[in-house]
This record gives sequence, structure tokens and C-alpha cells, in this order.
Amino acid sequence: MDNILYIKIENYMFSCMKDSAHDPEHIFRVLFQSLKIASKIKEKINYDVLITSCLLHDIGREKQFNDSSICHAKIGGIMAKKYLLENKWSETDAEHVNKCISTHRFRGDNIPETIEAKILFDSDKLDVIGCLGISRTLMYKGHVKSKIYELKNGEICLGNNKNDEETFFKEYNVKLIKLYDKFYTKEARKIAKKQKKYAQYFYDKLLEQINEAYDSKEILNKIINNVML
Amino acid sequence: MDNILYIKIENYMFSCMKDSAHDPEHIFRVLFQSLKIASKIKEKINYDVLITSCLLHDIGREKQFNDSSICHAKIGGIMAKKYLLENKWSETDAEHVNKCISTHRFRGDNIPETIEAKILFDSDKLDVIGCLGISRTLMYKGHVKSKIYELKNGEICLGNNKNDEETFFKEYNVKLIKLYDKFYTKEARKIAKKQKKYAQYFYDKLLEQINEAYDSKEILNKIINNVML
Repeated sequence: MDNILYIKIENYMFSCMKDSAHDPEHIFRVLFQSLKIASKIKEKINYDVLITSCLLHDIGREKQFNDSSICHAKIGGIMAKKYLLENKWSETDAEHVNKCISTHRFRGDNIPETIEAKILFDSDKLDVIGCLGISRTLMYKGHVKSKIYELKNGEICLGNNKNDEETFFKEYNVKLIKLYDKFYTKEARKIAKKQKKYAQYFYDKLLEQINEAYDSKEILNKIINNVML
Repeated sequence: MDNILYIKIENYMFSCMKDSAHDPEHIFRVLFQSLKIASKIKEKINYDVLITSCLLHDIGREKQFNDSSICHAKIGGIMAKKYLLENKWSETDAEHVNKCISTHRFRGDNIPETIEAKILFDSDKLDVIGCLGISRTLMYKGHVKSKIYELKNGEICLGNNKNDEETFFKEYNVKLIKLYDKFYTKEARKIAKKQKKYAQYFYDKLLEQINEAYDSKEILNKIINNVML
């Protein structure tokens, strides 16, 4: 891939995402991370397919945001293929990009098959783990006006039940914690192992700090029930 | 303070904050934390004043949200005093609550003077430090659609300059990091010392993770400039 083609595809990505709240820096982190993983893999990599898939992997987000029945990965893959065919890409490579994008989402029934698809999947997931994953999840929870935790019968709810509120704790315990063993490449698994420790440390310390604040609830009960003071 | 009075003031707090996005759990953490600090202090504490000040310390938030020229601490203090005088509190205690609330904000020129005011100030700040402070700040940044960091000339900007974007990194480096030596009570200083370590660990690991993603930017430059591959 040369500079001119890269900039053309990058501009197409920007034009698709201009109204999207999705952070463009995520796209670049996924791209750079993918190239790092690729550099450590012995298999031959189709860099045109890999770079293009990374740049365009979230172009379907806006459509999903406007209609939640649409899967951004599926529609994004179709949009990318159409664009590439219009720009004289071969059917094989355009379809390969479609496959990479459509399988990058964390879903059981549509898994990445080629090495390029696996690298994109892994890099995208590396951006939702560790302290960065914690940060992005908390920002999203703030954006949709969710809470860090809910109280159920006065107890801090960790979100392990289906009917629990969609809090940060639920997202962490139900989704984030399960990402760490879903990687396809050895390099991503190595990074994930390190990041898991950092994320867990943060979660543990956050829970501890919240619990410590509630510890003294009993003092209030004693005061207002005239047991003491 | 008895149960009936407590519930009455709690209900007044809820009625003032019903349209506010501010998390009500923050109020209770501040209240419980204040009681814990109070329990470790030898000085005589006016618990009516302390509990009431904690419950009502953020009732002015909505007015500040609708008009940013209003200080929620100042207006909240006035609102609380008016409410308490209407409910047959003495001028002395109502004014004391006013003072506690009006000095709870982190501002140089209006500092807490009584032990009750110092405890409220400290407990409110303990809720913005450590992993909880990180979480609340990130959620707020998501709510107002800010970013974790901005790129300046391709470099990750830490927000140390006045004109830098209002990112999470700027909030951390300019505001959060400076809270840790602003406490009045010994107990709060002890908690803050522990929490500082956890918050700093998270920040360091987050920055490291982001830097590691950008590390391989050079690989892209080599590819698109045909230096390799």
C-alpha cells in the first residue's frame, strides 16, 4: 500500500465517521496495534487487506447507532467491499476486507478465519481491556448516563444477574472480564495477560474504596435511632 | 438527630436533586465517610449540623448546572439555611450548616473553619480521589463528550498547558493530582495517602498502554512510504 492509497482510504473512513461519537483515535490504536502483532507473526500478511480492514472496521457504527437492529460489523463489511470494488480492488481482496470487518465483533457465531481477520479482532479487543478498556467503558457509561454501581437492598450490586441495572460493575463482571481468553494470536494473548492484572487491580481497589465508604453506615443508624450520641 | 428529622432532611435533599444528573450515592458516601472521620476525632462534634450539611451539600448543583456563573456551594448553603430556619432550627445551627456547605468546594478563598466544615470538605474530596475519583471523572468526561487524551503533533498530550483540550489526562494532571495534600483531618490524610498510590498506578498503566499502541506507528510509515514490505 502506498501513501496515496492510504490517505484515500483514511479519508473515506473519516467521511463515514464524521457524525459519529466514536473516538477516531480508537481506529488508529487498532491499526498500529495490528501492525505490531503482524510484525511478530511468521505467516505472510496481506497488508493492503489488514490496513484497510483496520481503518474501515467501525464505519458501520453510525448506522447501528441510528438503528440498533443493524450490526455495525456486518454493514461495515458490506460498505467497505462496495467502496473498494468501486475503486478497482479485486473481488478477492474486497471480499477479504468484508470478511475481516464482519467478523471483528465479539460474537459467538461469526468468527475470524484468516490471519488478517484474527489480527483485527485481537487488536480491537486489546483496546477494550486493561486500563484503557476500563476508561473507555466508564466514559461510555457516563455518555449513556449509567452508574458505576447500583444498590440492591443496601448492598453494592456486582451485576451478575441478568436483571441487574446496566452499571459499570455489570459491564466489567459480565463482559470485560471474559475478553481476556478470547484472543487468537500469541502476541495479543501476551499483552492481554499483562493488562488483565492492571484492570483487576483497579476494579478491586475501586470496590474496596466504595465498600470502605459504606462501612460506617452503621454509625448513622445508631445516631438516628438514638442508640448513641 | 432522630429518625424523623433525618428522613425529613433526606427527603428535602431528594426534592432538590430530582432533576439533577448528580449521583445520589455520592451524597451517602460523603455522609458515611464524614461519620467515620468524626468517630475518630476527639473534638466534640455537632452531629445535627454535620449530618445535615452532608445531606444538603450539593442541593445547589442544579442551579449551577443551569447557570454556570452560580456557585453551587454558595447557593446551596443559602438554600439550606432558609429551609432550616423555616423548620425551626436556631439561627446559630442554620448558619453553621450554611458555612459548612458554602466552604466545601475546592477554592482558595473560602476555606472551612469549624470541625464539621472540615469533615464535610474532606469527605467530599475523598470521593474524587483514588479509583473512585478516576471513575467519576471518566464518567463525567464521557457525559460531556470529552476525550481521554488529545494528540498534539502526533504526541499524546498530558494537558499541562492552559490551552490544552479539557481531556481526562488534563483533569488528572491539573486537578486530581493536586487534591491529595489538601485535607484538613488526620484520618482523611491517611486514606488519601493510600488512595493516591492506587490512582497513580492506574494513570501510569493507562498511559503506558496508550503509548504501547502508538509505538508501532513507525511500521505504518515504513509501509506507506514503501520503505519495506
